[in-house]
Amino acid sequence: MRILICNDDGIYAPGISVLHKAVESLGERHVIAPDVERSAAGHAITLADPIKSMLVEKKGEFFGYGIGGTPADCIKLAVCAILRDTPPDLVLSGINLGSNTGISVIYSGTVSAATEGVVLGIPGIAFSLCTFKDPEWETAGRITREITEQIIAKPLPPGVLLNVNIPNLPYEKLKGIKVTRMGRSRFIEKFYKRLDPRGRTYYWLDGSLEVHDEGDDIDIHAVRDGYVSLTPIHFDLTAYDYLKTFKCMEKTF
Amino acid sequence: MRILICNDDGIYAPGISVLHKAVESLGERHVIAPDVERSAAGHAITLADPIKSMLVEKKGEFFGYGIGGTPADCIKLAVCAILRDTPPDLVLSGINLGSNTGISVIYSGTVSAATEGVVLGIPGIAFSLCTFKDPEWETAGRITREITEQIIAKPLPPGVLLNVNIPNLPYEKLKGIKVTRMGRSRFIEKFYKRLDPRGRTYYWLDGSLEVHDEGDDIDIHAVRDGYVSLTPIHFDLTAYDYLKTFKCMEKTF
Repeated sequence: MRILICNDDGIYAPGISVLHKAVESLGERHVIAPDVERSAAGHAITLADPIKSMLVEKKGEFFGYGIGGTPADCIKLAVCAILRDTPPDLVLSGINLGSNTGISVIYSGTVSAATEGVVLGIPGIAFSLCTFKDPEWETAGRITREITEQIIAKPLPPGVLLNVNIPNLPYEKLKGIKVTRMGRSRFIEKFYKRLDPRGRTYYWLDGSLEVHDEGDDIDIHAVRDGYVSLTPIHFDLTAYDYLKTFKCMEKTF
Repeated sequence: MRILICNDDGIYAPGISVLHKAVESLGERHVIAPDVERSAAGHAITLADPIKSMLVEKKGEFFGYGIGGTPADCIKLAVCAILRDTPPDLVLSGINLGSNTGISVIYSGTVSAATEGVVLGIPGIAFSLCTFKDPEWETAGRITREITEQIIAKPLPPGVLLNVNIPNLPYEKLKGIKVTRMGRSRFIEKFYKRLDPRGRTYYWLDGSLEVHDEGDDIDIHAVRDGYVSLTPIHFDLTAYDYLKTFKCMEKTF
């Protein structure tokens, strides 16, 4: 079992070290992750620029490759170049500091790394710890290992990845694990407009979360209720329910 | 009717001028687009950096705002700041030089601008002209106008955007308009490994398209057959067909 490890908080973030440690002994681990934080990178890839790669050490030992690109770049580069002769069997992404639930999923670099694995035919799991402060890394590490073991034992269906959100609680306070849907909750944006010293306009984005969903089976509510949220995610964006709606626009010239 | 116009090829690209011209007289046009090319930006947004904005002229007249951010940034900034008091009724993105069919859709900044409109509750349409050379802009402009007129007359359902791919043919050679599914065809990546003058490794991404799909109702095949492809797209990434598959992983502590 060769495990490719990535994230979007960057290779120096604590969460990726927790993930790396959590899956020790489950397989051969290869860390290939952005050299700096690339949060909210979505599914961006680098087409028109070179992508730098450097060796990164942690605690005096080789830890992995720091890549001057997005999470999706890292996975492509790992599978198609760095690990080309020994392709990974599993992509693990995270552990992200902050949840990836609701509409945030479409902006998430953490999820995007796992998605890219699945695009390339390799099962992927994205892990996020739902907090920005006082992270319960021990809980996150234990859940990450348990879920990874289960997926190794019973592989994911092709074309589907798992988006895992972990409540920031001591392990013994978790209520359980729940399969959920991606919700519609999202950040309501606010921009602060400023002028630079030369009088030119710039903006800072800020926002606050607005909860739009009802139902225990929604990712954000499962986490709020103390459950680890597991959402199966795919990347066929066709709105199948609406194919018929648009049939009236069809014509032949 | 206030129309917000964006793209991912950048505000100076010819396609956005064609779009701008094509929808003249359909409403009040506001161009808010990246200041440089941001192709393959996916649904990236800028969280940790300021976003610059400048006024851009074309042919000696004010054309729009050039934004130092991604396509999704532009739409957020437009709706939540620049046009906050007079929000747009429709987001049009493109006209992209190059197709956005198959798996490419998930990397597409063109599609992402329209998606962001829909996230914010504003109908969105993404337009792409399927070529990288000798673009038939006249065809693209006419189709863009026709489809925009239809959507103004019969609005899109909430939560759904339209991804339009236009074959690069003279208008009279088009076969028609077809409603399609997003295919699975994708670029097979190849990385070229090089060393910089200081001996450090970097890579260039290249790739060639591999067609994976069968069926006339697939986006890429509709375009190949001379049809304008209309794909309804949504952003609920839940793999509903697999919710039951993962039920066995549920537990209560």
